[in-house]
Amino acid sequence: MDFSAERAFLESLADAAAAAILPHFRTVLPVDSKDGHRFDPVTIADRAAETAMRDLIAARFPDDGIVGEEHGTLNDGAERVWVLDPIDGTRSFIAGLPVWGVLIGLLHRGRPVLGMMAQPFTGERFGGDGATAWYTGPGGPRPLRTRACGDLAEAVLFTTSPDNFAPDELSAYRRGEAKVRLARYGADCYAYAMLAAGFVDVVIEAGLQPYDIIPMIPIIEGAGGMVTAWDGGTAVHGGKVAASGDARLHDRVLAVLGE
Amino acid sequence: MDFSAERAFLESLADAAAAAILPHFRTVLPVDSKDGHRFDPVTIADRAAETAMRDLIAARFPDDGIVGEEHGTLNDGAERVWVLDPIDGTRSFIAGLPVWGVLIGLLHRGRPVLGMMAQPFTGERFGGDGATAWYTGPGGPRPLRTRACGDLAEAVLFTTSPDNFAPDELSAYRRGEAKVRLARYGADCYAYAMLAAGFVDVVIEAGLQPYDIIPMIPIIEGAGGMVTAWDGGTAVHGGKVAASGDARLHDRVLAVLGE
Repeated sequence: MDFSAERAFLESLADAAAAAILPHFRTVLPVDSKDGHRFDPVTIADRAAETAMRDLIAARFPDDGIVGEEHGTLNDGAERVWVLDPIDGTRSFIAGLPVWGVLIGLLHRGRPVLGMMAQPFTGERFGGDGATAWYTGPGGPRPLRTRACGDLAEAVLFTTSPDNFAPDELSAYRRGEAKVRLARYGADCYAYAMLAAGFVDVVIEAGLQPYDIIPMIPIIEGAGGMVTAWDGGTAVHGGKVAASGDARLHDRVLAVLGE
Repeated sequence: MDFSAERAFLESLADAAAAAILPHFRTVLPVDSKDGHRFDPVTIADRAAETAMRDLIAARFPDDGIVGEEHGTLNDGAERVWVLDPIDGTRSFIAGLPVWGVLIGLLHRGRPVLGMMAQPFTGERFGGDGATAWYTGPGGPRPLRTRACGDLAEAVLFTTSPDNFAPDELSAYRRGEAKVRLARYGADCYAYAMLAAGFVDVVIEAGLQPYDIIPMIPIIEGAGGMVTAWDGGTAVHGGKVAASGDARLHDRVLAVLGE
């Protein structure tokens, strides 16, 4: 299968999302005095970005399906389905931190074949097709490659928050955390991007939605990493997911999580 | 007192630190095969940046004292003492995340009178003199102002990691966390900068070093916020520190922490 047109189209989708989102990033919350509820800039931006991307997809690939965080599912029985999370990392967005991202994935017969994470504020984009992965940004374009790290004792581990785990999941996470060189909280999609770039070795998460992880799979795999459910099955359904930059490490991570 | 020359000098110090640090950001760790220990890019960058800043200070203000994270204390009985933390947020740096910062503070007779947080990768700088605070970066120059938020139920709270608290401190932190609208982990100096910018309402930390917080004090206060020890005393000694964007909120935060 040749997805070169779709690969270029990822950039158009990311451009449209950035244009919809950036005017709302780091804006002060106005209050809707009429009903006493806040307007929520992140929700406004999220919806506007997804609408912009859906419109582009419908115009260019009208037979494709779409699964989006904000506007639901369209024709998800199609051979090709686009998976959109316009702002992954909403808590970072709300707080003004530049570690959220626009996630765009393409499934072909249920298999993730293209993915992108775009960070409009820093101008960084991380893309992948399962066989290769690439970066563009202030540091210039370059291929993404995970780094070799076969030993948990040498590994840098990320998770978004320990509060995202159920009690038994937290116990499993803590077993892994106790073995690594460095653990840090709070990065959402950016942690997977940094794993693909070779600066993070392991990401362990639970409670993911499919759109949180599907777009990252071709990037991580294209950079030489692995991403699966904790039981070693596919990560496309979300839930409990682990990613590793090195296949040797991934075996150890899954073993620790499954103890 | 007029610190306008020193205010401009902050930019020179931040430029020197950026030049020393950026070549080491997002570099793959080489291994020193001779003794089996890794070279540590963050340590190399940290030391090089502090040396560069100390050299500039010694040349421009030779009578001033210096307290630095990496190279210790020089003449800290001087009327004016520069306080340097060349890379605050080393775990973010190691993982490739752009939420670390160069911290530069100036004490006059023990009182913080100037501060800067510079993020070289994004090109953002947050400065303050206790009366005013300012931002420069991709969004253009603008004044920094905290936002009004008098109620914990409306507040966005940050702390770097719940693991940084001793057990009694964690209990106090959790009392605050339970009352806020949104809590997030993992931002170090960036959380204080976003508080000054009006996107974060409260930061609660423990175990801080003086150089972690002194440079942020004139920025937070200059933007209209408050930063004190948990008991309401000065924050210049580090330790348990709370910052709030709104004085009404700060009273409530200290009350909750002191329950």
